[in-house]
Amino acid sequence: MNVVGIVVEYNPFHNGHLFHLQESIKETDADIVIAVMSGNFLQRGEPAITSKWNRTKMALASGVDLVIELPYVFATQKAETFANGAISILNALKCNTLCFGSELGVIDPFVATNEFLLEKKQEYDQLIKKYVKTGVSYPTAMTLAFKELTEGKALLDLSLPNNILGFHYVKSIALQKAAITPHTIKRTSANYHDEDFSSPTIASATSIRKAIFSNESIHNITSYIPPCTVEGLNHYIQENSILHHWEEYFQLLKYTVMTMTLEELRFIYEMEEGLEYRMKKFIGESTNFKEFLEKVKTKRYTWTRLQRVCTHILTRTTKLQLKHMNSNETSPYIRLLGMSKSGQNYLRSIKKHVPLPIVSKLSSFKHPFIEVDIKASFTYNMIFQEPNRSYLIKQEFAQTPITV
Amino acid sequence: MNVVGIVVEYNPFHNGHLFHLQESIKETDADIVIAVMSGNFLQRGEPAITSKWNRTKMALASGVDLVIELPYVFATQKAETFANGAISILNALKCNTLCFGSELGVIDPFVATNEFLLEKKQEYDQLIKKYVKTGVSYPTAMTLAFKELTEGKALLDLSLPNNILGFHYVKSIALQKAAITPHTIKRTSANYHDEDFSSPTIASATSIRKAIFSNESIHNITSYIPPCTVEGLNHYIQENSILHHWEEYFQLLKYTVMTMTLEELRFIYEMEEGLEYRMKKFIGESTNFKEFLEKVKTKRYTWTRLQRVCTHILTRTTKLQLKHMNSNETSPYIRLLGMSKSGQNYLRSIKKHVPLPIVSKLSSFKHPFIEVDIKASFTYNMIFQEPNRSYLIKQEFAQTPITV
Repeated sequence: MNVVGIVVEYNPFHNGHLFHLQESIKETDADIVIAVMSGNFLQRGEPAITSKWNRTKMALASGVDLVIELPYVFATQKAETFANGAISILNALKCNTLCFGSELGVIDPFVATNEFLLEKKQEYDQLIKKYVKTGVSYPTAMTLAFKELTEGKALLDLSLPNNILGFHYVKSIALQKAAITPHTIKRTSANYHDEDFSSPTIASATSIRKAIFSNESIHNITSYIPPCTVEGLNHYIQENSILHHWEEYFQLLKYTVMTMTLEELRFIYEMEEGLEYRMKKFIGESTNFKEFLEKVKTKRYTWTRLQRVCTHILTRTTKLQLKHMNSNETSPYIRLLGMSKSGQNYLRSIKKHVPLPIVSKLSSFKHPFIEVDIKASFTYNMIFQEPNRSYLIKQEFAQTPITV
Repeated sequence: MNVVGIVVEYNPFHNGHLFHLQESIKETDADIVIAVMSGNFLQRGEPAITSKWNRTKMALASGVDLVIELPYVFATQKAETFANGAISILNALKCNTLCFGSELGVIDPFVATNEFLLEKKQEYDQLIKKYVKTGVSYPTAMTLAFKELTEGKALLDLSLPNNILGFHYVKSIALQKAAITPHTIKRTSANYHDEDFSSPTIASATSIRKAIFSNESIHNITSYIPPCTVEGLNHYIQENSILHHWEEYFQLLKYTVMTMTLEELRFIYEMEEGLEYRMKKFIGESTNFKEFLEKVKTKRYTWTRLQRVCTHILTRTTKLQLKHMNSNETSPYIRLLGMSKSGQNYLRSIKKHVPLPIVSKLSSFKHPFIEVDIKASFTYNMIFQEPNRSYLIKQEFAQTPITV
C-alpha cells in the first residue's frame, strides 16, 4: 500500500495546493494521502485565515484521507523544528513517501546537500556564527554561510523558502531514520511570497489573502481557489462574520505587552534579549500590528521571527512551558482533525503499530504540548463575540474528527 | 486657614455628593477642600464609569480645590488599606478636618469604637478567626466578631458600609497620629447599595449607574445629578462613545484567565488558594462578567472581593509587584489630578512642608506603586478603538493637572 505524506498550512486551500495534492497522488501512485497541517497559528507567526476545522474540511473535500494537526510547538517554529515535528508524525503513521513542493523540483540535490552539510557541520556552524556576529538575522547568516561553504558546487539554492523547508524535511528523515522516501514536485507559477497574480488559475496563498483582506470579499479570487474553498470561506464568514488576521488580535497583543512587566516579557518563548525593551517602547504609540512591527524591526530580526514572538506573547507561551523543547524534538502525539472513509480504514489497519497516542478528542489526553495547543485555540477564538466565543471554546474539547 | 479633606469616588458625581461637599464646607467653615479620589478602578473592584480626568472636572466644577488620585494599590483594597492611603495623603497636605458621610452622622461612637477595639484587639482578632473558620467571608467574620464583642454596648453599627469606611478613617488618623479632626455628616435618603429611587433628587451612585446602563442613556437620571455631571458624561460619551463597565472588559479578563496557567494565576495579587481553580473551571463557558462571578462565588468570598481579584487579573497586578505592601501602608506620593485657583495658591503656600513628592506629570516620577497606576490606566483605556486608544495612553503621560 502506498501512503504519501504532505505537510501543509492551507491558508487557504488553493489551486496550487490542489495541483500539488493531485501530482503527489499521481507520481507516487498513492492509495492514501496524509496531510500534517498547522493548526490555528502558522509557521510565519500568523493566525490562519480560518480555523483548523474549516481548513480540514477543505482538505478532505479535495482528496486528503487523514488530516493531522501539527502541534503549535512545531507549527510556529523555524523550518528545522517545523520539519522535525511533521516528519515524526508522518513516520509514526507509516508513510512510505513524503511529497513536498520546491522551487527546484528534483530530489537529488536535497539529499546531496544534507550529506554535504553533515560532513561539513563544524565548518558550517562556525561560518554561521561569523555572519551572526556581523548583525544579520540568523536565517540570513545561514544563507550566507551556506553560500560561502558551497561556492562553485552544484548544490541546492537555500535562499528559496520552499527549498529550505524541503531540505529540512530531508534532513529530518535522515535524522529520525524514518522509512520515508522524499520526493519533490516543482512548484508552478506562483512563488511563495508572490503578492501578484501572474497565472490565470494559480496564485500564492499570500496574494490570495492579500486580495481577500484588501477587498473584504472573496469574490475576486474565485478563479484561484477550488469550489470547496469558496464554500468553506463563505460558510466561515456566514457563521462567524470574520476571517482571521493579525490586525484583529492587535488589541489583545497591545493589552498584553502593556500590562506585562519587562521581566514577564522576558519569560516569553523566543524573546531575545533586548527585544522586550523595543516592544515596550513602541507598543503604546502603535495603532496597528504592522506599524508596531515596523517600529520594532531591526536588521537583526526577520519579520517572521518577530511575528512568531508576537504569537507567543498572544498565546502567552513561556520558556518555562517549553523548557523541554529542543530543535530535534519529535511529536509526542497525533491529533486527528479529519478523515475520509479510506483514511479511517487505513488508520484502523495500522493502529496497533502506531508508536504515539492518537488523540481524537482533546478531553481524553493530557500533555504539556497539548496544553499549549489548547491555549492557542482559546486565543484564536478570543476575537469572536459571545456566545459564539464560549461555544467554540467548548467545541474545541468536544469536537471529534471530521469525517467525510 | 481651614482645610477640609474628603475621600471620594464620584462614580459619577451626583446630588448626594454635592450635598456632602457643601455641608462639609459649611460645617467646618472650610477655605479649601481637598478630595482624594479613586482613579480609574474603584474600591468595589470595578472600572469607574468615566476616566479620572473626566471625574476630576466634575469635582472642580462643584467646588473642590484639589483633586488627588488615591493610588490603585489603595483604591482597590479593603476599607482599612483604602483609608490608610487616603488619610496619609490628606495628612501630608495639612488638612485640619476630615469630613465623611455615614449612616450614623455623629462622630463620638466612631472614636469610641476605635478606642474600644484597640483595647480589645486580641479578643477581637480571636473572634474573627473563630468566625472565618466557620466558612464565612472575612468581612462577615469581622461583623459577627464585632457584634459578639460589643453586645449590649452602645457602639457603632459596623454592618453599614459607610460606618465601616468612617471607622477606618478614624482608626487611620489615630494610627498615623495625623493632626486631623474627624467629622461626619449624616447621609440623607439614599443608602450606599440602594438600587431604587426613593427621593426626587438624591439617589445612590449604584442606582444611577444601573439606570444609565439599563437605558444606555443619561436622560432619565438628570434630576439626580448636577449640570456639571450631565455635561461631563455627555462630553465623555461624545468623545469616546462609551461609558465604562465591567462587561466591556470581560473579553480581556476571559482572555487573560484562559491563557494564564494556574501557577501564573496564583501569582496575582489577592488570589486566594483554590480560587484560581474555580476561575479556570468557569471562565470558558461564561458569556459575561456577571455570569462568571455568579459561578465562581461561594459564601467564602464576597462579590466585592471577587471583583477586586478580577481587577488585579485584568491589570495583571502580581503579589511580587506589591510585595512591600501591608495594610498599614501609607502613600509614597501625591498625584495631583486637578486644582482650582485657590487650590493652586494653597499648594504653593504649603509645598515646602509637604513630606511627599507631588506628582504633576507622570513622566517625571518613578515608583513601583505608580507603575501599577500606569498599568491600570493602560488597561482602562484598552477598550477604546484606535487611534483614540493610543492617544489616551500618550495623554496619560503628558497630562498636567486640570486647572479651573
